[in-house]
Amino acid sequence: MPIIVQKYGGTSVGGIEKIRNVAKRVIESYNEGNKMVVVLSAMAGQTDGLIKLAHEMTEDPDLRELDVLMSTGEQVSVALFAMAVKSMGYDACSLLGFQVGIHTDQLYGKARIHEIDTRRILKELEKNRITTVAGFQGLDSRGNITTLGRGGSDTTAVALAAALNADICEIFTDVDGVYTTDPNVCPKARKMDKISYDEMLEMASLGAKVLEIRSVEFAKKYNVPIHVRSTFSRERGTMVVAETRDMEKVLVSGVAFNKNEARITIRKVPDRPGIAVKIFEPVFKAGIVVDMIVQNTSEEGITDLTFTVPKPDFYKTMKLVGSVAEEVGAEKVLGDEDIAKISIIGVGMRTHAGVAQKMFGTLAKENINIIMISTSEIKVSCVIEEKYTELAVRVLHEAFGLEGEPSEDH
Amino acid sequence: MPIIVQKYGGTSVGGIEKIRNVAKRVIESYNEGNKMVVVLSAMAGQTDGLIKLAHEMTEDPDLRELDVLMSTGEQVSVALFAMAVKSMGYDACSLLGFQVGIHTDQLYGKARIHEIDTRRILKELEKNRITTVAGFQGLDSRGNITTLGRGGSDTTAVALAAALNADICEIFTDVDGVYTTDPNVCPKARKMDKISYDEMLEMASLGAKVLEIRSVEFAKKYNVPIHVRSTFSRERGTMVVAETRDMEKVLVSGVAFNKNEARITIRKVPDRPGIAVKIFEPVFKAGIVVDMIVQNTSEEGITDLTFTVPKPDFYKTMKLVGSVAEEVGAEKVLGDEDIAKISIIGVGMRTHAGVAQKMFGTLAKENINIIMISTSEIKVSCVIEEKYTELAVRVLHEAFGLEGEPSEDH
Repeated sequence: MPIIVQKYGGTSVGGIEKIRNVAKRVIESYNEGNKMVVVLSAMAGQTDGLIKLAHEMTEDPDLRELDVLMSTGEQVSVALFAMAVKSMGYDACSLLGFQVGIHTDQLYGKARIHEIDTRRILKELEKNRITTVAGFQGLDSRGNITTLGRGGSDTTAVALAAALNADICEIFTDVDGVYTTDPNVCPKARKMDKISYDEMLEMASLGAKVLEIRSVEFAKKYNVPIHVRSTFSRERGTMVVAETRDMEKVLVSGVAFNKNEARITIRKVPDRPGIAVKIFEPVFKAGIVVDMIVQNTSEEGITDLTFTVPKPDFYKTMKLVGSVAEEVGAEKVLGDEDIAKISIIGVGMRTHAGVAQKMFGTLAKENINIIMISTSEIKVSCVIEEKYTELAVRVLHEAFGLEGEPSEDH
Repeated sequence: MPIIVQKYGGTSVGGIEKIRNVAKRVIESYNEGNKMVVVLSAMAGQTDGLIKLAHEMTEDPDLRELDVLMSTGEQVSVALFAMAVKSMGYDACSLLGFQVGIHTDQLYGKARIHEIDTRRILKELEKNRITTVAGFQGLDSRGNITTLGRGGSDTTAVALAAALNADICEIFTDVDGVYTTDPNVCPKARKMDKISYDEMLEMASLGAKVLEIRSVEFAKKYNVPIHVRSTFSRERGTMVVAETRDMEKVLVSGVAFNKNEARITIRKVPDRPGIAVKIFEPVFKAGIVVDMIVQNTSEEGITDLTFTVPKPDFYKTMKLVGSVAEEVGAEKVLGDEDIAKISIIGVGMRTHAGVAQKMFGTLAKENINIIMISTSEIKVSCVIEEKYTELAVRVLHEAFGLEGEPSEDH
């Protein structure tokens, strides 16, 4: 009998009536002859409410205890869901992280799953129970509760699908699939039928919030097919799958953007071995995630170093880098919060030339200045002034022919 | 170093500021050189809120899932408390039922503690951590979450004190001790300095809500001294301890009452062996707790059988007993919800005569009719018409000299 893992997000379970609807939907899949494992997030608003409580208690809540607190959100959801299923005459059982055996490291608030014990779940499935698992939570080797960070329920679902060798992992959310770009910015954005793991990874890391990035990494690693679809409609969504040859025929699959970064430039850094290490050490130590790093070819042993960090970390980073820049004899440190990163993504780039060139030309035609450029095998990213974000997205979406009816392949 | 177990109830932790105050109080005891184990209930209102959610979902929520839901209340409390302690510069650690190893049977909603694993707690105490344990919850042998029923946090605290061989178990609540009777009914009620386990058991089972009855049983069994006191004052409360000889000098320690029972009488039952078993079997099978049972001496092989049940079970019991009464050839079944049980309690009764007689006389003087009588070694209970409850409590309280300043012993 096929095993299906379904995951429903916070808005999908954000109320008694909504949980009941989810139960009905799950029972439908069960009645089609599938073994059902259902991963739930906390009810919409709950997580924020719990964070607020913690911050009312103290400015800087203890991370271990914050995870104990936060994990109650999903616990409430799975209990209510199992009650709903049982009240409809079907057997159900809720399992928390510690009951399943979702083993993680000890990084409170952003733990990573090491291993999942499938025995208890399989036992429940054998009894024909609809088994619901609290998303977002796990247990470290010393028996402490950990959480996987925002969006962690996606990871729980995909990791469970991998561990159970499930036939598919369905991620139910409040949008009906993955779009070529944000439909709020570009009304001509088109829902994709399928997208490769690598493309989805780039989309996710660039701010498309449909899937949490680690869940996509997991899916790629274990080759778990993901179906991203809407809780509130019956339509097919977007399949996230391994790359197929026909995907390469398409130059660009999507346009992504991210307004949530800030740029820091260190001017006239002496270009000596070990300088970069020295500059970034305090930043990395502070746990700040540096995204793009660009260093120009040095001229007379002097270079400029530019990088981006999340906006909330901007001031802290400026301070950290300020002192180290002085130490190494750099001229000055400049910062800019009003930037956006625009990216085009597509596995087709691997085999097609001129994609970057076309992107630069399209932006130039609109007089949009490019501040930074960074490329990967399947992505070109440009940092531009924030105010041009929407315009840039629309012209790139059009230039790469993403609008209109879906093609046969995408 | 002495180990102290403290338990704080729902009103004591019913808000961020209140939890902070509890943290301060616990830290005081810690600074006096004690190892601290702190058991918490859910924040006031939380438990009711969760029950309401469950009943919005379904009329008859699954018991296993109800326990999963309910146990989140205490989880929130201990996490917030540990955060508070840490924010004040002291080390703390929260532990849930499964993390401690509070092993119970599988009776969801009213589980009994079988065994407590003290290893994890002792490890935390060795690290000088203020260790807080979620009350009310445990784990059955199959790893399912169980709860101990309303007031279960008292039991958690006393059971922990027993398992840890703690020096004392302090129960912090919103009243400042155990009173000779309910001060709301009898303004002259007096706080007792100490009371024996047996007396406290009778008081609790008769409706005095200061301590959950099972926690007193536990305390008696393992000889755990309990100090019942107020969260909101510094005053000494009431010690619940093993019986001492001086306690016997006092005739009556307290007057208790219970308006929460209903009476059922089966008239003219054939007085044959096995009849009582037959009549009560369906009642016991339905899980209804029968309290007083009175059977008069039979006359010509015919007797009357009267018993009391909790009011919420009254109609169900009438129905169950109705059919079996017909079967055994009884004349009829009568019921009465407007009754109250008044009891006088005191270990002194064991060695003093005439206590019951004095009670009957006191009630008779006020023209209060006695409907049923039942006695134990340290208690006399009378069922009377409900409307006389307050009057009966006051006259008995006076007749047995319970008012005024505490005596040397009590």
